[in-house]
Amino acid sequence: MKIGILGGGQLARMLALAGYPLGLDFVVLEPAPDACAAPLAGHIQAAYDDPAALEQLAELVDRVTYEFESVPASAVEQLGESLPVYPPANALATARDRHHEKTLFNELGIETAPFAEVHDLAGLKQGVAQLGLPAILKTRTLGYDGKGQQLIHPGDELEAAWQAVGQVPCILEGLVNFDREVSIIAVRSVSGEMAFYPLAENVHRDGILRLSTCLHEDSHQPLAEDYARRMLEHLGYVGVLAIEFFQVGEHLLANEMAPRVHNSGHWTIEGAHTSQFENHLRAVLDLPLGSTQPLGHAAMVNLIGDLPDTKALLGLENVHLHLYGKAPRPDRKIGHVTVREASVDELQARLSNIDNVLQ
Amino acid sequence: MKIGILGGGQLARMLALAGYPLGLDFVVLEPAPDACAAPLAGHIQAAYDDPAALEQLAELVDRVTYEFESVPASAVEQLGESLPVYPPANALATARDRHHEKTLFNELGIETAPFAEVHDLAGLKQGVAQLGLPAILKTRTLGYDGKGQQLIHPGDELEAAWQAVGQVPCILEGLVNFDREVSIIAVRSVSGEMAFYPLAENVHRDGILRLSTCLHEDSHQPLAEDYARRMLEHLGYVGVLAIEFFQVGEHLLANEMAPRVHNSGHWTIEGAHTSQFENHLRAVLDLPLGSTQPLGHAAMVNLIGDLPDTKALLGLENVHLHLYGKAPRPDRKIGHVTVREASVDELQARLSNIDNVLQ
Repeated sequence: MKIGILGGGQLARMLALAGYPLGLDFVVLEPAPDACAAPLAGHIQAAYDDPAALEQLAELVDRVTYEFESVPASAVEQLGESLPVYPPANALATARDRHHEKTLFNELGIETAPFAEVHDLAGLKQGVAQLGLPAILKTRTLGYDGKGQQLIHPGDELEAAWQAVGQVPCILEGLVNFDREVSIIAVRSVSGEMAFYPLAENVHRDGILRLSTCLHEDSHQPLAEDYARRMLEHLGYVGVLAIEFFQVGEHLLANEMAPRVHNSGHWTIEGAHTSQFENHLRAVLDLPLGSTQPLGHAAMVNLIGDLPDTKALLGLENVHLHLYGKAPRPDRKIGHVTVREASVDELQARLSNIDNVLQ
Repeated sequence: MKIGILGGGQLARMLALAGYPLGLDFVVLEPAPDACAAPLAGHIQAAYDDPAALEQLAELVDRVTYEFESVPASAVEQLGESLPVYPPANALATARDRHHEKTLFNELGIETAPFAEVHDLAGLKQGVAQLGLPAILKTRTLGYDGKGQQLIHPGDELEAAWQAVGQVPCILEGLVNFDREVSIIAVRSVSGEMAFYPLAENVHRDGILRLSTCLHEDSHQPLAEDYARRMLEHLGYVGVLAIEFFQVGEHLLANEMAPRVHNSGHWTIEGAHTSQFENHLRAVLDLPLGSTQPLGHAAMVNLIGDLPDTKALLGLENVHLHLYGKAPRPDRKIGHVTVREASVDELQARLSNIDNVLQ
């Protein structure tokens, strides 16, 4: 069985690493010549919307998945004519546009921060009048890792913010004074089996995820699973779906969802019985899902920018290194480490050790 | 950092799977066009002793290791002129020849079954007179998975046995009435750091390993580690070394060693904090070795011959599938499964479930 992946970055790379033991082979479609999944997969080097390349991919593989949500709709449509493409197109369409996404959250009874649609400067003024400030102006499409976002404080020039995001369709979102950021990794197979990983608590800095810690029996787990189940069932979803929440007291406000394996689920490689990557593939292939139970107390620290002192990291017991084969560059995710310890205290101590190495 | 591997079978495949997360790349030298490591590595398709191919490999990679012990000495010599090759040539020379191997075991104070050198039929008769029957006639070189072995019972025609092994240099070995077969996976890095995995108990059938179970705090562990340490230090060894023993009461009789990652260590992928594959690479790269401590109670079952019902296997909780991408063929190892459970009882129950699927 051969799997095609749109995108050849670290998520495709980790899907391939999880998939070979299942007896799978992989082909990635990715325009970059030095794609980090390319050394361990077939590589069609072309644009994602190149019809000839998509045709070539469809001939080589048995089904297709993707590692990013801004996949061109035309690509999914063309591929879908000849083979299964998972997650389904409606999930992509929803996740690609923040307004559709938040509207659907609310329609399904999933709370979000208050938001308003913004088409122009007049709409932005109206949104501010409605939600108050501070608020965040976010482009409806193509934002990630804090890109395409502008925080507006009371007294700020609205026109400057509107220029800063590039005068494109946006939503304005009321700033939430949250207790924590958490995410759930959910998975649903072709035949409808579902599984949910324990919530992860996430720490971002400068809009980029730095740390995800697996939570054990968190009181918000049932609500997060309920919300994720509603979305999976509504979309007839297949594969891994990640939903990020702001936790405010007993409430979970959905911030965004990603119809793919997700950075806040990387801890599952060593920290759960079955990784999110393996379960994504099991789901897409309609195989039984693997256990999502945690193994010890786990956390994941992203390696961002420079290559760390890998010898020092590997000298720390219970630390697992995951480099992506990417050249260092400021703010670029070039790898992560997973820590798995027997107790929360040992986990916290080890995370301090890692911080010391990374400083 | 790029690693060259002589051989492109499942051991090379699992080395690559363990090495990509360390930021490594791989090139295999392997004559078979459909080598199962080839989809996830560069592939130089040539004979192991092809000087031009070896030169090409040496230009592409930073250091070389191998996945089988019958590597031509000339290949190691040629590669060793321009880059590090681990494990060292003396380990290969020892393991390639059963007589050298057993002689060295004894020289290092490591017990073995009684044995005699056999060059011809007369030598065989002399050996039988010395050791008695039953005994096993084994070719000195190129034997694996029970191939090149002939069990001789009292009353058997010695000439028939001599014909059966191909009239090549052999050793005759006294048959040991053992309690169990066990093996130790040991590892030593370039700078001399050593680590030892818990002993595995091994069950063979028709000369092929079927089941390896990780033993917890077995009373023979200190002796096995002592023996392995002697060998590692004597050889100035670098990488993973496996030694198989017959356990007879309090004694461990060394049967054979393999200067490479070993089938009886596959349980370490899920069953130990660090797999034998990752630790082999760490050793070869002179990185700190990872913890060899077990994670729960683990065992490994080989998948031999036919492709099993993978859906049924994956439906069993805590069962991890490892297919090698090889075509089914009688007596061929095409994959394995690892089981990891919280207790010995749960492990035994799960192994029964697996047996039921594989029948």
